[in-house]
Order: sequence, then C-alpha cells, then structure tokens
Amino acid sequence: MNAPADPLFAQRCRDSFARQKAMALIGASLTRVEPGYVEITLPYRDDLTQQKGFVHGGILGMIADTACGYSAFSLMPAGCSLVTVEYKINILTPARRSLVAKGQVLKPGRTLTIARAEVYADDGKHVATMQQTLMMQPNTPDTRE
Amino acid sequence: MNAPADPLFAQRCRDSFARQKAMALIGASLTRVEPGYVEITLPYRDDLTQQKGFVHGGILGMIADTACGYSAFSLMPAGCSLVTVEYKINILTPARRSLVAKGQVLKPGRTLTIARAEVYADDGKHVATMQQTLMMQPNTPDTRE
Amino acid sequence: MNAPADPLFAQRCRDSFARQKAMALIGASLTRVEPGYVEITLPYRDDLTQQKGFVHGGILGMIADTACGYSAFSLMPAGCSLVTVEYKINILTPARRSLVAKGQVLKPGRTLTIARAEVYADDGKHVATMQQTLMMQPNTPDTRE
Amino acid sequence: MNAPADPLFAQRCRDSFARQKAMALIGASLTRVEPGYVEITLPYRDDLTQQKGFVHGGILGMIADTACGYSAFSLMPAGCSLVTVEYKINILTPARRSLVAKGQVLKPGRTLTIARAEVYADDGKHVATMQQTLMMQPNTPDTRE
Repeated sequence: MNAPADPLFAQRCRDSFARQKAMALIGASLTRVEPGYVEITLPYRDDLTQQKGFVHGGILGMIADTACGYSAFSLMPAGCSLVTVEYKINILTPARRSLVAKGQVLKPGRTLTIARAEVYADDGKHVATMQQTLMMQPNTPDTRE
Repeated sequence: MNAPADPLFAQRCRDSFARQKAMALIGASLTRVEPGYVEITLPYRDDLTQQKGFVHGGILGMIADTACGYSAFSLMPAGCSLVTVEYKINILTPARRSLVAKGQVLKPGRTLTIARAEVYADDGKHVATMQQTLMMQPNTPDTRE
Repeated sequence: MNAPADPLFAQRCRDSFARQKAMALIGASLTRVEPGYVEITLPYRDDLTQQKGFVHGGILGMIADTACGYSAFSLMPAGCSLVTVEYKINILTPARRSLVAKGQVLKPGRTLTIARAEVYADDGKHVATMQQTLMMQPNTPDTRE
Repeated sequence: MNAPADPLFAQRCRDSFARQKAMALIGASLTRVEPGYVEITLPYRDDLTQQKGFVHGGILGMIADTACGYSAFSLMPAGCSLVTVEYKINILTPARRSLVAKGQVLKPGRTLTIARAEVYADDGKHVATMQQTLMMQPNTPDTRE
C-alpha cells in the first residue's frame, strides 16, 4: 500500500533501532520491517513487571510507541528524523507473557504521520492498542549530535 | 483537598512501588507521597535513551503512568488494587536530563479515577503531560498471586 | 464474533439513538446496527462547518463518539445504560462532504468496553479515527429520569 | 505569560469564531479572549442532549475542541491558519446545565501547539478535561476558499 521513499528503509530502521539503548535495556528486538509496518518482540522478564507481576503498563507503552515510530520511519526519506508528538494507549488485558507490538501507518504525511500499534501476547491475546502522532524533521540526522 | 481513605496510604504506596521491578530497572524512585499527589524521580542514564540520546518517549510514559497510578492509589481504601485503563501523553520537548513526574488526581471515583501527570526536567523545562484513567478493583490484593 | 446479550439489541439501539436530540440537531442517522458494530451517517450541511467550510472537528467527534457508544451498547444486556469515559480522535484529513462513522467494539467487558470508530467521507477518504472507553451501569434505565 | 504575535489577535479570533457555523448551530459564544487563553460559553438547550437528557459527550468535545483551538490561534501571527491534529477528552461527570470551556495553551510552537481545555458547569462542577494538538499552516487564509 505504502511505497517507501528510501529503498534502504529496512536497514535504516534497523540501524536506528540498534541505537535505542532503552530497547536494549528491556530486551526488545525489531523482528520485522516492511514499508509502513514493523514488529517489535519483547520476551517476558521478571524485571519488566509492575507490583502484581504483570508486564508494566509503561513497558507496553514503550514497545507500542517504538513500533508506531518505526512504522512511520520506514516510509520516510533518508536523512530525516522523527519525533513522537503524542500517543494514547488502551490496556485491554494484563499480561504475564512475551509480547509482540505490531506498528502500522494509518496516514502518512509530509509533516505528520498517524500510526497505530496493537500489542499481542504469545498466547494470542490482544493486550493493548495505541494511536500515535509523529512529526518528521527534514534534513535532520537521526543520530546523537 | 482529597482525604485519603486509608491513614496508612503513604506506606502502602511505598510498599507497592517497591514491588514494581520495572521501576527498579530504570532507576526510578517514589520521592513524594501526599493524598492524591505523588512524585517520581528518574536520574538521567544513558541506557534510558532513544536513538538520538534523548530519554525514550516510552520511558517518559513509564514514569508519568506510574505517577498517575500512585496518585490514585494514595486515595484508595486498603485491600484494593488499581488497573490502568488507558493513558495519553503529549511530549512537549525532548530531554537529556534527570526528570520528575508529578502525578495528581483530577477526579477520584468509586470505580474510575482520572489523573494527570506533568513531567519536568531538572532545568525546569516542561517535558510531557499525561491524562490517565484508572479502575479500582475492590477486595483485590495488590501483590503477586 | 460478538454475541449480543439481548436478542432485541438492534431495536434497543435504534430507540436509544432516537432519544439523542443532539443527533437530530446535526442530522445524523443510525444506518446500520450489528452485534458490536454500527454505522452513523451524516449528510453534509453548511451549518456543521468550521471557519473554513470543513465539517467541524467537534462534529467529527460527535458522530465517532456516538458510533463507538452504540457499537458497545449493542452488546449490552437489556436494562443497562452506558457512559462515555473518554475518547481520543485523530483527524486525518479535512472534509467538506457527507460522512459515515463506523463504530466497532475492540474489547467488550463487564464493566468497561473499548471501541474504535473510523470516519469516512463519501468519496472514500479516511477522515478520522477514534479510540474510546465506555463504562456500563447495570440496572440503570437508558432514558430521562 | 504568552505574548501574542499579532496585536489584533482578539479581533482575529472573534472574526474566525463568527465564521464557525457549527458554533452558531449549538448556540456557543466566544466570551473571553486573552493571549493563549479563551472561554467559550454554551447555554443549556434540550436539543444538545443525549438519550438521558445530559449534554451530549460530543457537544462537550465540540466546545472543548474549539476552546483549545482559539487559545492556540490567539498566539499565532496574522495570515496563518490552524488545523486540529487530535484531541483526547475525559468526561468527569454528566451535565444538564450551561457550560463554559476554558482553553489554554500548554506549549506554543512554530509548527505544533499543545493546548488543554477544562469544561465546567454553571454550578462549578468540573465536567470534562481535554488535551489537544494543533498544527499551524503559515501563509494560509483562515477563510473559505
């Protein structure tokens, strides 16, 4: 549906994701990259939990946020950077399992892109759903200054 | 403004927070607890960052989410548990500094509570703002089963 | 997918919608009711517009809100009432045309239901997307007191 | 706090609001305009209600949306236009009374502005709270083409 502006989009997404130290901290991987669609996988770990042993709601937000971001980034031209403007997440059920966040572009745009992510547990349960707004910064390196 | 239903609310919040292993993972502390209001402090660490070296937007969400949650939990009766229904965060400016998330109850309720959190950097900049909905589960232990 | 708790769900939805005077004011109709899914149609009118002649963003919210609400209401038992807890809408493109809002239950629940609505223009353009949380009030009449 | 870029901001807001036919339809008025802050007043009318006689949640969204929008518009330079990117509203209590929506800029920006609105009933009850994102379109007339 969506044509990537940069033929090297998949490698560009992987390189950018690899620079996200917060994703390494929680053990998340970028396991699929297509134009306008990515998947982030998070194995269950005890140190990702809240007080009752479920994966922390903020951790659900982290992987959904990142999945939305890279779904948008995959459609961007080389040489730009993306910032998250806002996101909203509904937590549908608590989860004590490994997770995958599937991010998808709803509406690509020159300045703003709207994306959605669905988070599923490895037993198939629908854990969370996110709606997100991102803004492109043209001619801005996606690296540390 | 808000009267706590449980005189031991502060200790109950601290005990619950101490069971949140995800908060230990990122190095966050519960640094203030009042009825309907809490603060969570997060020292800057390189392993909390996204690809450009700013604190990850999902980490901002984690501390804001948790600050909203404990502001609500502080007003709850003993013996109940809280679940996060949903939250929405706007990121106002990127931050590469230590942060504090200030959570406050907007509208306490028997079933649902609405809370807000503001995230500030240690130079005073307003980094993010969150609106959150929580649901009380009466007579439910706030611990691992 | 979703089984209605009340076999007379469709008539119950139509009766409730007919009591929504705000829907009559803007000229909206409930044009389809299935279990967990409804459509609301809004013919374009000049008095529904904002300053530039597009349908007002709040009017988009009204029909999306109502579509989410009745998708949830269709699955409820007879004799209950629903309240909207919160909603979030992204406006994807401005519209100066007739619209349909398609509401669908994402996660039905005993207390809370999560629904989504997509708003389309009659030329097929995707105009807006909404995520909504609703709370059921059991044994509560859905009428004026 | 916020300095308006256009000394004639108040008249520009009033003129733009007067072109919003949807606001005339529901009987809303722009009753206060300050830099970064506006109030919109909505007298109670029976034709603004939902099935139980409360003001429709979508009508609450309309006045909160518009209040956020004009709080942002008041800080904009002359000759630009604003589009609503997204908004999220929590409904705190049902209302069967006249309302005021108070919109305030949280973070002004060259491209994006973040605003908040609080809706109160005329008995002082806090009815709803909204967080909104707006985008400026420079050199774009705020009128019908």
